[in-house]
Amino acid sequence: MKFTINRNSFIRTFNDVSRAISTKTTIPVLTGLKLVVESNALILTGSDADISIESTISADDEDNELVVTEPGAIILPAKFFGEIIKRLPESTMTLSQSGDSLQTTITSGASEFTINGLEASTYPQLPTITAAQSLNLPADILHQVIAQTVIAVSTEESRPILTGVHVTIKDNQLLAVATDSHRLAQRKIELDDSVSDADFVIPGRSLNELGRMLGDDVKTVELRIAENQVLFSFDHTAFFSRLLDGNYPDTSRLIPKTANTTIEFEAPALLAAINRASLLSHESRNNVVRLSLKVDEQTATLFGNSPEVGNVEEQLTFTNLQGEDIEISFNPDYMKVALQGVGQSTIEVAFTAPLRPFTLVPSEDHEHYVQLITPVRTF
Amino acid sequence: MKFTINRNSFIRTFNDVSRAISTKTTIPVLTGLKLVVESNALILTGSDADISIESTISADDEDNELVVTEPGAIILPAKFFGEIIKRLPESTMTLSQSGDSLQTTITSGASEFTINGLEASTYPQLPTITAAQSLNLPADILHQVIAQTVIAVSTEESRPILTGVHVTIKDNQLLAVATDSHRLAQRKIELDDSVSDADFVIPGRSLNELGRMLGDDVKTVELRIAENQVLFSFDHTAFFSRLLDGNYPDTSRLIPKTANTTIEFEAPALLAAINRASLLSHESRNNVVRLSLKVDEQTATLFGNSPEVGNVEEQLTFTNLQGEDIEISFNPDYMKVALQGVGQSTIEVAFTAPLRPFTLVPSEDHEHYVQLITPVRTF
Repeated sequence: MKFTINRNSFIRTFNDVSRAISTKTTIPVLTGLKLVVESNALILTGSDADISIESTISADDEDNELVVTEPGAIILPAKFFGEIIKRLPESTMTLSQSGDSLQTTITSGASEFTINGLEASTYPQLPTITAAQSLNLPADILHQVIAQTVIAVSTEESRPILTGVHVTIKDNQLLAVATDSHRLAQRKIELDDSVSDADFVIPGRSLNELGRMLGDDVKTVELRIAENQVLFSFDHTAFFSRLLDGNYPDTSRLIPKTANTTIEFEAPALLAAINRASLLSHESRNNVVRLSLKVDEQTATLFGNSPEVGNVEEQLTFTNLQGEDIEISFNPDYMKVALQGVGQSTIEVAFTAPLRPFTLVPSEDHEHYVQLITPVRTF
Repeated sequence: MKFTINRNSFIRTFNDVSRAISTKTTIPVLTGLKLVVESNALILTGSDADISIESTISADDEDNELVVTEPGAIILPAKFFGEIIKRLPESTMTLSQSGDSLQTTITSGASEFTINGLEASTYPQLPTITAAQSLNLPADILHQVIAQTVIAVSTEESRPILTGVHVTIKDNQLLAVATDSHRLAQRKIELDDSVSDADFVIPGRSLNELGRMLGDDVKTVELRIAENQVLFSFDHTAFFSRLLDGNYPDTSRLIPKTANTTIEFEAPALLAAINRASLLSHESRNNVVRLSLKVDEQTATLFGNSPEVGNVEEQLTFTNLQGEDIEISFNPDYMKVALQGVGQSTIEVAFTAPLRPFTLVPSEDHEHYVQLITPVRTF
């Protein structure tokens, strides 16, 4: 095995593939990067058994400056190899390994590293996904769907199914839902392609890693689903994720259809006020802030309190307060995350009763994104 | 007590004073910020008993937008108060407190916090330094002296005196020395002022905090020394530090006067090579790299090795290699810190024997800065 390559090109692809490589795995070979050198391309693979990422660097792209002298394959210790290649002195580097030896030499300028690799054939096989049918999604939309739903997945392993995002494809509509049973986020998109129905749960962690890989240069992502795996393909990369086993709870009837009180806020201003109020609530045993809406007086007041430290009271700026007066207490951290999910927009918050979940929707598009927060009983 | 102030001006001064405030102190009142409101100025004080910082915000500076309505004094919980003032909505804020109440109200825009303070009179007295004589130092020189010496102080409490920097003023020359017994850094400056002799040891931690406060806007620092305290005064700030008790070891004869081998490197290039070699040495039990200098062949080679992971060999770029061949092993982390201490310059490294300390000095100024590193026996 011998090749020379542009170091930045290699590092970029290595960083992508490294997202799937964990130093904590119980399977030693998975702490390695699998490197396959073909006559015209390199194939880098990383996996933690849940997520596997395979990415190709082609000699056809001149920016890669890839020159393969001798094909071959090896597994290199990923963390260590990554630290080496980041610190090499020149803009290109050469990797070589001879015959049956597992020693790989990395040279760049006057610097020469020799590191011990593992036999490439010991690396686990990647899943094979034979699904003929695929679904193409614009990368920016997929990125948004991920960002807007993973925020509500559970981080507790007591109900593993809730650590994933539930995706349903039906009637040319994709519905993504996540809930940790205290809050819920639901995003809908209309599909251009006509695709067959599907129903699966992807681990939130997989979606987080996938989301981080969808930079501005990625335009379209192709999605294929198998029995217990999903494959996202884009550019030179294949991203595999295990799916979660089990039935996702029925969330379709959780979102209230009617409201007794509605109000609109600028999300960034409300977020800043919630951040201030939570300074106090974080100091108290029950992390709760209180919102008081008075329709006749047209006031919205947010309260935070900690018996030891002090309290805060803030008059919120709002529009369109309608319906009945309400006093409601909730965990400000759920509200923070929900507001980060909507970004710069104006949001409508709709309440039914002090102890019933309330909804947040973007004012300009009620239909496609809704978040639900369960209030806290304080008496 | 009541005043209104520009929030950024206050935060800047608060951040400076906060350097002395620890949340880990065993003296509860020291977790607080002491705030004294005079008719024309605020005085903020923070202390952890070792370091005390007092800083003044004057109404004379219009940028401060300080308007005092009622003088007074209070101690506020520093960490918590800091988080509040950073998150307030408007560019100004008002603090008020009435009569004997310890409750302090902070208002900014529509946001109103009420927090519990402590009685100002319970705050410890700051040291009084009556020394008539003072020494004025340019802030940039003092900053350099600090940066170049604190890197060699000991972090181990087994010999407390070595956690400080030893400062000697004699014959209008200031000498600052630090050593942790594995390496040493010594910086000399000639003084313009004629000052009396002095000899004291300042905790490295105090100097680190002082160094961080000496931004580009500080021009001159006035230094006054008392029995067991030193006071650095600049701009609107008084920085007090406790001095260390005990006799600092005599370091004057540690620095070799002659050398058998000398070589010059560009510090940044050598640093990059050391960083690469240390990748391997960090993986091995004894964290050591080896430097081999061959005068006839005019080669300088750096080796790093880890039996499990692999090895690295690098031909170094150098100038002026003279004297005898030498092979020497040392801890690369000491060399890294030493090279960071000299910045962009060319350095001369001088060796006497494989097991004797070697020196690093800037090539263009041998006189004023010298670092010493003790090699490691590897056989």
